[in-house]
Amino acid sequence: MAEKFEIVTKALQKMLEEKKYAALRDILLVMYPNDIAELFRDVEEEKIPLLFRLLPKELAAETFVEMEPEDQELLIRSFSDNELKEVVDELYVDDAAALVEEMPANVVKRILKQADPEMRRSINQILRYPENSAGSLMTTEYVSLRPEMTVEEAILRIRRQGIDKETIYTCYVTARDRTLLGLVTVKDLLLEQDDERKIEDIMLTNLISVNTLTDQEDVAKTLTKYDFLALPVVDGEGRMVGIVTFDDAMDVLEDETTEDMALMGGVTPSEKTYLRSSAFELFKNRIPWLMLLMVSATFTGLIITAFEGALAAQVALTAFIPMLMGTGGNSGSQSSVTVIRSLSLDELKFSDIGVVLWKELRTSILCGIALGVVCFVKIWLIDRMLMGNDSITLMVDAVVCLTLAVTVVCAKLVGCSLPMLAKALKLDPAVMASPFITTIVDALSLVVYFLFAQALLGV
Amino acid sequence: MAEKFEIVTKALQKMLEEKKYAALRDILLVMYPNDIAELFRDVEEEKIPLLFRLLPKELAAETFVEMEPEDQELLIRSFSDNELKEVVDELYVDDAAALVEEMPANVVKRILKQADPEMRRSINQILRYPENSAGSLMTTEYVSLRPEMTVEEAILRIRRQGIDKETIYTCYVTARDRTLLGLVTVKDLLLEQDDERKIEDIMLTNLISVNTLTDQEDVAKTLTKYDFLALPVVDGEGRMVGIVTFDDAMDVLEDETTEDMALMGGVTPSEKTYLRSSAFELFKNRIPWLMLLMVSATFTGLIITAFEGALAAQVALTAFIPMLMGTGGNSGSQSSVTVIRSLSLDELKFSDIGVVLWKELRTSILCGIALGVVCFVKIWLIDRMLMGNDSITLMVDAVVCLTLAVTVVCAKLVGCSLPMLAKALKLDPAVMASPFITTIVDALSLVVYFLFAQALLGV
Repeated sequence: MAEKFEIVTKALQKMLEEKKYAALRDILLVMYPNDIAELFRDVEEEKIPLLFRLLPKELAAETFVEMEPEDQELLIRSFSDNELKEVVDELYVDDAAALVEEMPANVVKRILKQADPEMRRSINQILRYPENSAGSLMTTEYVSLRPEMTVEEAILRIRRQGIDKETIYTCYVTARDRTLLGLVTVKDLLLEQDDERKIEDIMLTNLISVNTLTDQEDVAKTLTKYDFLALPVVDGEGRMVGIVTFDDAMDVLEDETTEDMALMGGVTPSEKTYLRSSAFELFKNRIPWLMLLMVSATFTGLIITAFEGALAAQVALTAFIPMLMGTGGNSGSQSSVTVIRSLSLDELKFSDIGVVLWKELRTSILCGIALGVVCFVKIWLIDRMLMGNDSITLMVDAVVCLTLAVTVVCAKLVGCSLPMLAKALKLDPAVMASPFITTIVDALSLVVYFLFAQALLGV
Repeated sequence: MAEKFEIVTKALQKMLEEKKYAALRDILLVMYPNDIAELFRDVEEEKIPLLFRLLPKELAAETFVEMEPEDQELLIRSFSDNELKEVVDELYVDDAAALVEEMPANVVKRILKQADPEMRRSINQILRYPENSAGSLMTTEYVSLRPEMTVEEAILRIRRQGIDKETIYTCYVTARDRTLLGLVTVKDLLLEQDDERKIEDIMLTNLISVNTLTDQEDVAKTLTKYDFLALPVVDGEGRMVGIVTFDDAMDVLEDETTEDMALMGGVTPSEKTYLRSSAFELFKNRIPWLMLLMVSATFTGLIITAFEGALAAQVALTAFIPMLMGTGGNSGSQSSVTVIRSLSLDELKFSDIGVVLWKELRTSILCGIALGVVCFVKIWLIDRMLMGNDSITLMVDAVVCLTLAVTVVCAKLVGCSLPMLAKALKLDPAVMASPFITTIVDALSLVVYFLFAQALLGV
């Protein structure tokens, strides 16, 4: 797919250079908005307005929605008032609201001036809701039906009103005061053989709806859990105010996953794509975490300093510090990553913490024993016999392997419980991923190491 | 949401104990299949068949599809042939095929015996495609139209045929030999004001379709990229054989993300949920990686042993090893996690490697300088002056901070390039995440450390 696309891009760029606009237009006409927007990313900035003007109205608006904010701003600045109005008229309300949220103030002013009064009202309504709420994600354009309509009347209404609704496949049945009563799908309507049947007789009434203030991640999860095409959004009084459609929900889930992964890697999440971020922006997202972890590593330094005597007495001990800390850190990340993912899929809740600890305890004991035994043999065969390091005695080997086993158990218990604690404290569990746990486990493994050394080697 | 659900679960369990079946049935009737399946997870095993029998046919089948394989098997074993036939008859073909794939041989035999001949044929067709291909994910039940039909005829056909199609909203226009010609949505049909218009005049012909052998992850990405409800699947000759629907695509994407995260945490991905996995299964998924990384840490041990003399001459150096390795590892993970996510979102391709290296080089130099300077001051103020560790000289401080800066740069370059190399070699980039990179960076940082120590401290 990707290779094919590059060929098309190159061909189009050549046509652009040679000013073959008619041919260019013919090709753009059969392309999808998404692909055209992608194409724009690889085109010189000053050519974008020119290319955009080749598109017919509807395709132009659909492409516009898919573009990066930077390109959108560039285009709007190049638009005449008339051109801007044409694009804005074609936008769905939720896309228009999202656009207004992204643009700088002077551009927003121009957009709102060109929007017709009804759209302006809807945009303002959506923008009033807090960021990341269902209200800010929804569109106010949906098909509403009345309970007393017949199937035939309902189909007629859809055929008349459907043109600028984002989805027509799920229709909402509301009372005169906009209270949400039920829903009917177009499938139900089409498959109903009796045209005279009343909507209230066929509508689904055990509705799942969200409130305008529901967090967008919960909205998206609910939508995908039930495989709905859209989810109704109601206000505090149960009156219908809009719908969230599945495509927006999927974007939310994708963004949330990206955010989780960034946090798991110790990076402040950002809305910009990697290639669009400057080196300085990347630096800003990364440096706070590195600083924090670098400074917190002071503890491991202090522990080592405190046991300097032990290390001097048994020089062989130092060589195993990286292995012990590394294996401990990896064990901890394994547990934390697994638990974080289960939490974000709602497979786990905080009340499961007992089950989780018990499972991790058994798993970690198995891992600890297996690693300890293999490590014992490995050290003896490779480090002592093959490499001829005589400072490694059987006792030193035992200290290392006992530490390894105990560290793995501690690491896994810490790794599974921190994300669950974060969840209970309403923090994002992903914050408690590898970098944090590694730092804690590092300190822990050193303390265990030196305690064993004192006990068994008497240093 | 979760709390509300627990209340319902408890109420239902109480009714079950008190054998209030009629009341129980009334509640189940207004619940969603997904929620009923979730409920079954918290119910004692022997009660499941009883509860299941309370459900009307269609709801029973829909609930069945949402259940865990273990519960499905339990139910089938408790079914009479007649009951099994009723459930199988209600299943969509793709769900039936998925079920057959999951069940043990003797259960499969019973299922196929109860399926009617047409469904048996379809199941067998789907099962013939390789695992994780579009063919194995698709359903063969879709609405097909002919180009010469009128809009009115098409709507009529949908109303007659729609009942057991998984989606009716996207209809595919095929020639007599099943060659895929175009598509029409129900929205197009309903909004078309001229009932006599021919389908071939309104159908979309710049189709995006996938081949039966296309990898399911590519299928899912294509579907979500264009926000389609379904994607047509064609065979080698361009003949239509089925469709993949958006709900199945979303499940694929969710599974792929879970897999990526598992790999990033150094765990072999598994299809079982965390709570369903036994401690031994978790152990099996985790131990190979821990062993591999433990053994590869032999290198860091060898490096330290080789420089034992230097460490003995300057005892202060040992204390900073964990900090250097930790910060290096974290820097590397930051880059690798960011690059892995961008690769999996198709925001990056291998040909961008030059851009990525250049961006990471600048970012890492900024991070390296900032960390180096802060670390230098911190060591002098805290470790030397506050803690009174006199073995830390200005030169030792300089060695530590120079090593830190250089390690961060190396770590970020390694962190960003390994996942891209994996991609180029058609491996999963997520394999190249933190645990691997940490091991490489650990060795690297030690070598840099001792080289600086030799050069500046003459040890």
